[in-house]
Amino acid sequence: MRMYDIIKKKRDGGELTTEEIEFFVDGYTKGEIPDYQASAMTMAVFFQGMTPRETTDLTLAMAKSGDMLDLSVLGDKTVDKHSTGGVGDKVTLIVAPIAAALGCTVAKMSGRGLGHTGGTVDKLESIPGFKVELPPEQFFGQVKDIGISVIGQSANLTPADKKLYGLRDVTATVESLPLIASSIISKKLAGGSRHIVLDVTCGSGAFMKTPEAAEELAKAMVEIGNMAGRKMTAVITNMDTPLGINIGNILEVKEAVEVLKGAGPEDLKYVCVEIASLMYASCFDCSADDARPLVLDAISSGNAFKKLCEMVEAQGGDVRYIEDTSLFEESKYKYEVKSPKDGYIISMNAETVGIASVVLGAGRETLEDSIDYKAGISLLKKTGDKVFAGDTIAVLYTDDDSKITEASDMILGALEFSQDKQKEETLIYKVIK
Amino acid sequence: MRMYDIIKKKRDGGELTTEEIEFFVDGYTKGEIPDYQASAMTMAVFFQGMTPRETTDLTLAMAKSGDMLDLSVLGDKTVDKHSTGGVGDKVTLIVAPIAAALGCTVAKMSGRGLGHTGGTVDKLESIPGFKVELPPEQFFGQVKDIGISVIGQSANLTPADKKLYGLRDVTATVESLPLIASSIISKKLAGGSRHIVLDVTCGSGAFMKTPEAAEELAKAMVEIGNMAGRKMTAVITNMDTPLGINIGNILEVKEAVEVLKGAGPEDLKYVCVEIASLMYASCFDCSADDARPLVLDAISSGNAFKKLCEMVEAQGGDVRYIEDTSLFEESKYKYEVKSPKDGYIISMNAETVGIASVVLGAGRETLEDSIDYKAGISLLKKTGDKVFAGDTIAVLYTDDDSKITEASDMILGALEFSQDKQKEETLIYKVIK
Repeated sequence: MRMYDIIKKKRDGGELTTEEIEFFVDGYTKGEIPDYQASAMTMAVFFQGMTPRETTDLTLAMAKSGDMLDLSVLGDKTVDKHSTGGVGDKVTLIVAPIAAALGCTVAKMSGRGLGHTGGTVDKLESIPGFKVELPPEQFFGQVKDIGISVIGQSANLTPADKKLYGLRDVTATVESLPLIASSIISKKLAGGSRHIVLDVTCGSGAFMKTPEAAEELAKAMVEIGNMAGRKMTAVITNMDTPLGINIGNILEVKEAVEVLKGAGPEDLKYVCVEIASLMYASCFDCSADDARPLVLDAISSGNAFKKLCEMVEAQGGDVRYIEDTSLFEESKYKYEVKSPKDGYIISMNAETVGIASVVLGAGRETLEDSIDYKAGISLLKKTGDKVFAGDTIAVLYTDDDSKITEASDMILGALEFSQDKQKEETLIYKVIK
Repeated sequence: MRMYDIIKKKRDGGELTTEEIEFFVDGYTKGEIPDYQASAMTMAVFFQGMTPRETTDLTLAMAKSGDMLDLSVLGDKTVDKHSTGGVGDKVTLIVAPIAAALGCTVAKMSGRGLGHTGGTVDKLESIPGFKVELPPEQFFGQVKDIGISVIGQSANLTPADKKLYGLRDVTATVESLPLIASSIISKKLAGGSRHIVLDVTCGSGAFMKTPEAAEELAKAMVEIGNMAGRKMTAVITNMDTPLGINIGNILEVKEAVEVLKGAGPEDLKYVCVEIASLMYASCFDCSADDARPLVLDAISSGNAFKKLCEMVEAQGGDVRYIEDTSLFEESKYKYEVKSPKDGYIISMNAETVGIASVVLGAGRETLEDSIDYKAGISLLKKTGDKVFAGDTIAVLYTDDDSKITEASDMILGALEFSQDKQKEETLIYKVIK
């Protein structure tokens, strides 16, 4: 088998065999196939696409390129949840404890933030003492004891995807549906859960800009996950405006705690209840409508919040910060961004707001950058709200006052105003199974 | 400027600017742009194509990447001729002396053979003493004195093309019209002649398999050459059957001498007269019909043959071998391939015959292989001929008798027979200016 022939076959619109895809993935991971052939291949895939069978084979080959967690000892209710990226997306911090409180098994690896989107692992690490790297025995033991553990991705998780994604990122071959879908699902397959709920975001803060594009990706991922033997659910959610009020690590932990205590902003609560219901529904084979009352009860009873506290404690975190979030240290500077005029906010570019939070220190440009856990943004006004000139739209938190003007200008630049109220935005477009 | 953005622009069907194309070619030649970005780029070009303006810019950028000959001191009648490759293609050996005898200026670099196609430089080197590497002063001096010199390509000729072609060859991006056209024409532009006549071959022994594909390539090359300020002519010729009778270096020199002495096979004579006429017509701004009688006279008067002798002498070759080609050493073994049946030969795969000649020692698989100048094939019968079982179809020449069976089988395998005579093949399909 020669890589040249495989590239040529795909270039000319042929369907690659399982053996050809494995030859490519294995050879590239081992360094036997050079970058220049792999990039010609991914560009050919960009143009010619892949069938669901090819995409599933690619996903499985990448999943098997590194460590694969076997969670079968934890029973048949293991559930993973993945978001394709958002701004202010603290959903995992909320739905994972809810699902665990209801008897689902959450043994989950999460990622770090990069660019304008945050990562669950960073948010958890902002809790003093919280450890995201656990030895396997401790990870499995904790899940057996309390039904939940969220850790960082192992170093040897899908090395093929890591290498290929790095190459795609510099050769303009990221935007290919089968390559995006296989990259995401390969990590989920390696993560080992039987049930997988995908939050496929769309809008200005998301990778997919329209509900249609998000639905296409969601369908592809559900199909390959199902073909690989997992039970898949995908939900298309709106990421045109940041989710909830807070952006930034400690700020988002605080907001997640509020929701688990029955308070918190409506948009965030609504999305979290739906996603948690889909997680439960998949594990217990019922409808989301049947699951919803149980989810609401897990919040109102305090069981979900208790589950978060158990996890924080089990992973070495100081649970007092969760019980009383006012203990969290605050940023040196707080700055109020005022509205320049009267009117309705009719849009708020989530990506721009996300980048403003990175400017303030809440995120990283490259994986080597360090994060200021305290930094971030609270949005007091959001899309749909009426404001008057001089009203506070957002509060900026940072230790570096030299960045305030830039971040403030970005937030104002992210807004569009109108004199007329617009119709309300849809938060959840569709559920795909 | 970032290579990433240039790849993305081409991927999405955009037209690259001159600056973007120069950035790519210069950066890639210097090693600042890595192979993996260049291969993604060439695959994007494979799918999206290039406008004539982009192709011309690419061609010029590659031409300028190395040495460019300035032939302006030699006047305005410098003429180059290029074949896109063939089997038994000794046309340059014939048309260059004819054109020079008629007052055109032939200051030409030629290539070596590779795979099933031969190269003019190897054929010239088969003449004892003939030197294909001349110092520039000697090259220019000789052209000023006698109007002709054919030498090998300088080491620093279009290094960008050399590097890019090597990459395309292993990433399945050879078959792209703008990339093929720019690769060929960049070398011709660097060669410096004002007039360029392209022999675009088509058929089983050529890169382009159909006259239509050849015409498309010819038009692209004529357009970019004209845009770059050269006077271009292209002629589409048939390379379904080897051209003339002989394949192999000394064998082809002998046949070229025959044609220049007024004899030789009709197909070869016909093609050479037409191409020489087009070379003259371009230089002296007349029609090919006006040029043809002059070309025929240059042959019948012996002036063209005299010009070949002058060139051989000037470049250190032993002219006695040209004056009496029976002086050339002969192969140890001569083997006659006999027809297995009665009938008309209706096709003779030129590529297969070319490979058979390589097997006998006449060509090379890689640029490092050495050549047996004596080796080759004489085709006593060709497409269109009637044969009887036992007739000699071809004579094989080699010093290695272990290869005879393989080569003989290949030649018989290259043939198709029929009981009915087929209509004659077209030798020249079209002239494009």
